[in-house]
Amino acid sequence: MKKGIDYCIGFHAAGISAGIKKNGKKDLGIIISESPANAAGVFTTNRVQAAPVVLDRERITSGICRAIIVNSGNANCCTGEQGIRDARAMTGLVARELGISEDMILVASTGVIGQPLPIEKITRFVPGLIKSAESEGFQDFAEAIMTTDTVPKIILREGDLDGKRFKVMGIAKGAGMIHPNMATLLGFICTDIQATSTMLQDALNKANEKSFNRITIDGDTSTNDTVLIIANGMSGAVIKHARHQKTFQDILDDVMVSLSRLVIKDAEGATKLVEIIVTGAKSNEDARIIADTVAGSSLVKTALFGEDANWGRILAAAGRAGVPVEPDKTEIYFNDVAMVKAGKGCGPEAEAEATKVLCTPEFSISIHLNMGSGHASVLTCDFSIDYVKINADYRS
Amino acid sequence: MKKGIDYCIGFHAAGISAGIKKNGKKDLGIIISESPANAAGVFTTNRVQAAPVVLDRERITSGICRAIIVNSGNANCCTGEQGIRDARAMTGLVARELGISEDMILVASTGVIGQPLPIEKITRFVPGLIKSAESEGFQDFAEAIMTTDTVPKIILREGDLDGKRFKVMGIAKGAGMIHPNMATLLGFICTDIQATSTMLQDALNKANEKSFNRITIDGDTSTNDTVLIIANGMSGAVIKHARHQKTFQDILDDVMVSLSRLVIKDAEGATKLVEIIVTGAKSNEDARIIADTVAGSSLVKTALFGEDANWGRILAAAGRAGVPVEPDKTEIYFNDVAMVKAGKGCGPEAEAEATKVLCTPEFSISIHLNMGSGHASVLTCDFSIDYVKINADYRS
Repeated sequence: MKKGIDYCIGFHAAGISAGIKKNGKKDLGIIISESPANAAGVFTTNRVQAAPVVLDRERITSGICRAIIVNSGNANCCTGEQGIRDARAMTGLVARELGISEDMILVASTGVIGQPLPIEKITRFVPGLIKSAESEGFQDFAEAIMTTDTVPKIILREGDLDGKRFKVMGIAKGAGMIHPNMATLLGFICTDIQATSTMLQDALNKANEKSFNRITIDGDTSTNDTVLIIANGMSGAVIKHARHQKTFQDILDDVMVSLSRLVIKDAEGATKLVEIIVTGAKSNEDARIIADTVAGSSLVKTALFGEDANWGRILAAAGRAGVPVEPDKTEIYFNDVAMVKAGKGCGPEAEAEATKVLCTPEFSISIHLNMGSGHASVLTCDFSIDYVKINADYRS
Repeated sequence: MKKGIDYCIGFHAAGISAGIKKNGKKDLGIIISESPANAAGVFTTNRVQAAPVVLDRERITSGICRAIIVNSGNANCCTGEQGIRDARAMTGLVARELGISEDMILVASTGVIGQPLPIEKITRFVPGLIKSAESEGFQDFAEAIMTTDTVPKIILREGDLDGKRFKVMGIAKGAGMIHPNMATLLGFICTDIQATSTMLQDALNKANEKSFNRITIDGDTSTNDTVLIIANGMSGAVIKHARHQKTFQDILDDVMVSLSRLVIKDAEGATKLVEIIVTGAKSNEDARIIADTVAGSSLVKTALFGEDANWGRILAAAGRAGVPVEPDKTEIYFNDVAMVKAGKGCGPEAEAEATKVLCTPEFSISIHLNMGSGHASVLTCDFSIDYVKINADYRS
């Protein structure tokens, strides 16, 4: 996304380097709304929660937010009481600079767990960060929240309510430690629509279920997962009834699904984007459990990396999911190539065709159980040598 | 284990190459008891079960076995009705050669899933295989059941019941697709003690819980997991009462725990053997869930490979296990080096000490939750570049 694009009305952002990351890249970002915005959030389900998550959970109950400050390079997690003080200090500084209440500032951190936040670096750079915030600063912001991401992730969509245009912009980071629920390290949604915080929470929950809760990279759930949505109403488009709500939901879904696809595409070391689709399960829940198990299987993921149409591993993973599967009824497709029918392989020609599918960067694996009408899907990626390299060396 | 060692009385074994494996290595093995032996077994919990597992489950109910035939190179799984016919054919051939009932023959297969068993190769080699069986043939047998294993795995232990000596020998294969429950592709226990099949089943269940159910390599459970125990009573040592049973259980536990350690040590691509110990959980079950989650975390396992004392990932994995964890009370040790106290890192000196531990091939990670008296442990290994290489290229 280039500068000059029409961003959401009344939002400013910036991203700079404060020296938190060892490599000197951008690591401190801010989003500011010109007017108080209604807000909602979803957070990690991990029992270990980073200090900024603890603080945001408390503050989001007010339903109002003016600014979000974010650092990368340090997760401010497992940092005890000092961590909470540091998270508060980050927001306190922003509040003073903007001349508003600290309670209206939210905060997020991402990076290494268990090291004290270098708060003095942040303190030094916050005034300059705020000064540099502008409507075209979201690209810099998106870069400042990256960790192992190789590209910044921004999605902008437009809609209208009875002729009034509104925009929804999403920025996310995440390339590892990605698993439902929920599955992005950090996501920020800005919109100039007018909606109550209750509406926002409801819409965010629904969109999250369809997007970040449907992707897996490595089965690990972060301690810092946070998705915040803030709506400042400055477009003049107001959600007044169910039809409006539906219009907004569709756009928000689109933004968050698109962001979640960007996350998977940028997954650590990944070379393939693969949708695992399960149909014909006894229930949607069963289908979901099977899809998650196949999507998370190390053996399936290494076979994807090896471009090996090893459907036996797929069926074996489905079989260990812990819910009913009848192998003799099961079909497996790679895109539209049938690999397995009635629990048996379709032979070498089918395998040759499936291997062609496997050699493309984006495809689906469909598992038809023929036992009922339950269905679910999840996005995953392959498990590569580079994944191991990236994660063996992460802190060095 | 070398030839000339005193094996269990009344057992013969052999292992040869029948051309099932592409590389020409041994791939067909047999164990024969001179007299009918009492038998028991535990099998995979995967809903997808290989043909030999289906057959053995049925036959083991008789509690009697004379021989076990095993092939590697092909799992005879997801092979439909033909697979069942092939499994039966393997045992039928052995029965004819030995002049005994087919019902007394058990069978196991391991290797690639979803390809028809090359039964004609097996048929051709069974007579020669049986002829070559001898009391010193267990080394060959152990080699014949290997897939990605780099070493054959045999453990022999001795005990006595009121002055009568007896032996317990275990042979296992497994280096990947290893996860509770249960977690070895194949295990075979021969003993010359006299015990009923009910006693054997009880003892096997208990020993399995302490051994193969306590190891994880990659979180994938095989479709072929089978552990069989056969006892022919030829030593003259008879289990008569509870004290005898305890003596036998201790020896069997030792054999199976030792075998499970051999499996983890030989794990695909692994460079570290790591025991994850959880204490102070609210219950043993909670402790087990946390230990399994940490032991299975890709991020923990890649950090182990990278010799990075990244305790944040350990705490984060414990936190996502889905059971109560209070980070502020949690301690983490690498062997006896304290890394985390009250949920916070112990600083750079501790980290330097912990890194020394990490650079050794075998160590423990202890997580003290300080919430109760529940405890559990599980053996795991690191997640290496070679694991990905081995599993990306497995079928090629």
